[in-house]
Amino acid sequence: MNIGFIGLGIMGRPMALHLKAAGHTLIVPERCSLTAEIREAATVVADAEAVAKAAEIIILMVPDTPDVERVLFGAAGVAGGLSAGKLVIDMSSISPTATKDFAERVAALGCGYVDAPVSGGEVGAKNAALTIMCGGATADFERALPLFQAMGKNITHVGEAPGAGQVCKVANQIIVALNIQAVAEALTFAKKAGADPAKVRQALMGGFANSRILEVHAERMINRTFAPGFRIRLHQKDLNLALGSAKDMGMALPNTAIAQQMFSAVAAHGGADLDHSALVQAIELMAGI
Amino acid sequence: MNIGFIGLGIMGRPMALHLKAAGHTLIVPERCSLTAEIREAATVVADAEAVAKAAEIIILMVPDTPDVERVLFGAAGVAGGLSAGKLVIDMSSISPTATKDFAERVAALGCGYVDAPVSGGEVGAKNAALTIMCGGATADFERALPLFQAMGKNITHVGEAPGAGQVCKVANQIIVALNIQAVAEALTFAKKAGADPAKVRQALMGGFANSRILEVHAERMINRTFAPGFRIRLHQKDLNLALGSAKDMGMALPNTAIAQQMFSAVAAHGGADLDHSALVQAIELMAGI
Repeated sequence: MNIGFIGLGIMGRPMALHLKAAGHTLIVPERCSLTAEIREAATVVADAEAVAKAAEIIILMVPDTPDVERVLFGAAGVAGGLSAGKLVIDMSSISPTATKDFAERVAALGCGYVDAPVSGGEVGAKNAALTIMCGGATADFERALPLFQAMGKNITHVGEAPGAGQVCKVANQIIVALNIQAVAEALTFAKKAGADPAKVRQALMGGFANSRILEVHAERMINRTFAPGFRIRLHQKDLNLALGSAKDMGMALPNTAIAQQMFSAVAAHGGADLDHSALVQAIELMAGI
Repeated sequence: MNIGFIGLGIMGRPMALHLKAAGHTLIVPERCSLTAEIREAATVVADAEAVAKAAEIIILMVPDTPDVERVLFGAAGVAGGLSAGKLVIDMSSISPTATKDFAERVAALGCGYVDAPVSGGEVGAKNAALTIMCGGATADFERALPLFQAMGKNITHVGEAPGAGQVCKVANQIIVALNIQAVAEALTFAKKAGADPAKVRQALMGGFANSRILEVHAERMINRTFAPGFRIRLHQKDLNLALGSAKDMGMALPNTAIAQQMFSAVAAHGGADLDHSALVQAIELMAGI
């Protein structure tokens, strides 16, 4: 099948190559940053509009909401190349509310739209082991499913409403941030009280305090290994989506708001590009350690 | 061995019976509330002082810091019956700082002291599967270990400092409360945005958002089954220990403080005896659902 792929960064490159390996024809827009491997694997066309003309299904994997809007509806964008019956899949992590708008505008052109943000990072992308959270009509989801299966493992159709996948991804980022802060407050408490955080972590891993974050991120806190991983800067973007959507919907997310402030405090000390487990530095700062 | 056991409530009863089953002689103080099963299994003496006179090792399993102080140092208390070489094991969940004081006063009588609070609840107590977090001198810990092995599974000597076990237990309760709030904020966000929380939970269980709380407590939130389990009232007591100790040590626990306020909000609506997963009701209240 002819698959358009727009957004060939650290995540997009291995994802696109898995589709190629599954037997699909890749069509990508010209960018100076295209790697030799991608140029070899794909047909390179002028721009996003040309991608949409040549492909049946167009996948986006770009950084943020304004990028998706520009790629879809900007000059020489995807919308100009769409014709009825094509399918747009946005795998970027962006605003759930903007997604509803984008899906409506694409539907008005007679095309399907699936939002399908991922988690699992670069490692998950390389190993075709991404978690993929999808929103959109069941028929569109089912049409996209074979492509998802080439890129990921834990694939959920969260709901028919456009944006349901983005809502799920935001929920994921809320939990990850708050579980990091949970571990950061607990281990800093233990350290301040003179206990060994490594022993505390070990003791807690057998019980209800256990989590993937206690397994992985607590170890980074203990070993002081804050090379990313997932950068604080990116988690700040995701919590902005959470807090902005929450404000729009009329609801409070008190601990999410505090976690965002903790990330800002670490960034204030030059840590925006550290791994998000470095949130612990803000708690330590407030403990005088 | 002659083991004194003081505090034969819901947790203490099965714990004491496991020691009996392991071949020890149980000595307990007279209380009208003693069950027939305990009267059958144990030697009943007048008071805590008499227990300490008759036993080599005295175990406490009582509700809170003032109870431990009264049992140890009050009228007809354990201290009056101690002689050099005996060992006091406090398995109650109490203040880490008070524990240091109690351990010093017991050491002045020539006796060892191990603080060994547990997690795992009534089910863990009945199945001899408690997690036990211990503070105290290594020799004292090793003397207590065979008893712990009769009552629990995941047994950690957190540190030699008296109170290290209590510090670890507080850390556990911080993480459990904050992971509950993490899931509560995320699922309420999803619900408010029109997504199905059950689908969201399913999607997140494969990734970094996964935790024992997402597995167990998120399901209670989705199914609205708030029968305890672990009561909000008890978790409030534990977070008081966390926030009180943090204040004493000079450190901030911002999300723990918010979680405590959320428990208070649920209690304000009559929920103090609901399971701690009912914290989600405070988040829903603030979301207008």
